[in-house]
Amino acid sequence: VPASTTIRRLADRARYDRATLDEVLDAAYVAYVGVVVDGAPVVLPFACARIGDELILHGSNRAGTLTTVAGGTPVCATVTLVDGLVLARSGFHSSMNYRSAAIHGVARIVSDPVEKRRLLDAVVDRLLPGRSAQIRGLTEGELEATLVAALPLTTFSAKVRSGGPKDAPEDLSATGIWGGVIPLVTSFGAPIPDDATAAGVPAPSVTR
Amino acid sequence: VPASTTIRRLADRARYDRATLDEVLDAAYVAYVGVVVDGAPVVLPFACARIGDELILHGSNRAGTLTTVAGGTPVCATVTLVDGLVLARSGFHSSMNYRSAAIHGVARIVSDPVEKRRLLDAVVDRLLPGRSAQIRGLTEGELEATLVAALPLTTFSAKVRSGGPKDAPEDLSATGIWGGVIPLVTSFGAPIPDDATAAGVPAPSVTR
Repeated sequence: VPASTTIRRLADRARYDRATLDEVLDAAYVAYVGVVVDGAPVVLPFACARIGDELILHGSNRAGTLTTVAGGTPVCATVTLVDGLVLARSGFHSSMNYRSAAIHGVARIVSDPVEKRRLLDAVVDRLLPGRSAQIRGLTEGELEATLVAALPLTTFSAKVRSGGPKDAPEDLSATGIWGGVIPLVTSFGAPIPDDATAAGVPAPSVTR
Repeated sequence: VPASTTIRRLADRARYDRATLDEVLDAAYVAYVGVVVDGAPVVLPFACARIGDELILHGSNRAGTLTTVAGGTPVCATVTLVDGLVLARSGFHSSMNYRSAAIHGVARIVSDPVEKRRLLDAVVDRLLPGRSAQIRGLTEGELEATLVAALPLTTFSAKVRSGGPKDAPEDLSATGIWGGVIPLVTSFGAPIPDDATAAGVPAPSVTR
């Protein structure tokens, strides 16, 4: 583990294994991608998908920040899932349950059109398995207008907190104060078809 | 609006008003805070709360990144709420509905103990109104061990996408392909009291 990605704060929550990283990335829709522009940080959200050993980001070829992300500069991509509010008998010991990961590195531009098309289809299928084969494929123009950046999963750290509050022992006599976890759950609402969808066409099922 | 925070990509989705910013911040639990460390970006998640005209971040005095955030260096704090998957008849026109905001600036350290205590209580009450008065207050030692950073809401941009897919007109004849929005909803699960909570003590109600 490189020193720069070693977690010093609450190190018992740190994880450096790919299994934990993949679990966090595969549950997330958005990665927060930081770059340095004119000496200052810029953090923007991007739809993300882990494909193999890379985190795939995509967007318009004209998107300023994504061209910077893909331009050979250091990048930090961070993902966090908030799993619950952890309520202790003091604010100091209250917390959140979460799964978080940060990847540091330099992204490559995916320029080979065959690989680019394969990755963009895989991004669709990561959300909705099989959908890329059902919808209209990318035109050459769309492929050219899309920028695909791939960040290798080589330098990363993850951090996980789970379970109930860890109160100071002397606070636990206050049994009239509710302590515990209020879970936060992300789920899908009822699908809303648009006017161009024929009656009876089933909504695709989502996997995250 | 300063040039550095002007949104060029899909500018019709851009918002620069405080009402939109506040709506996004007040719905979020976590801000992704970027700083530059040794020339490279570092993005870490922090629990956040908007109190008045500032975004309040807090953590341990010994947390490396938070001390950098509060150390007078340029900061970018970004928040995004994903509201749904937008499924078009092509991958190119598929999208997500979201509300996002990015704040640029320099954070101040809140060092006055009275203000610091007031802000930390307000952070608790932003999640659970009235809870700071019910739980055990901060000790002097806890107050000293906590770092509070306040980022002013002066330079920011927001971006909002809502509604259904915007397909290419020629794709709309494929009425057998489902198109529309699959909403993403964040909600609370059943509260899980810990062993130190007396039977019958009601769980606090959360407001976000």
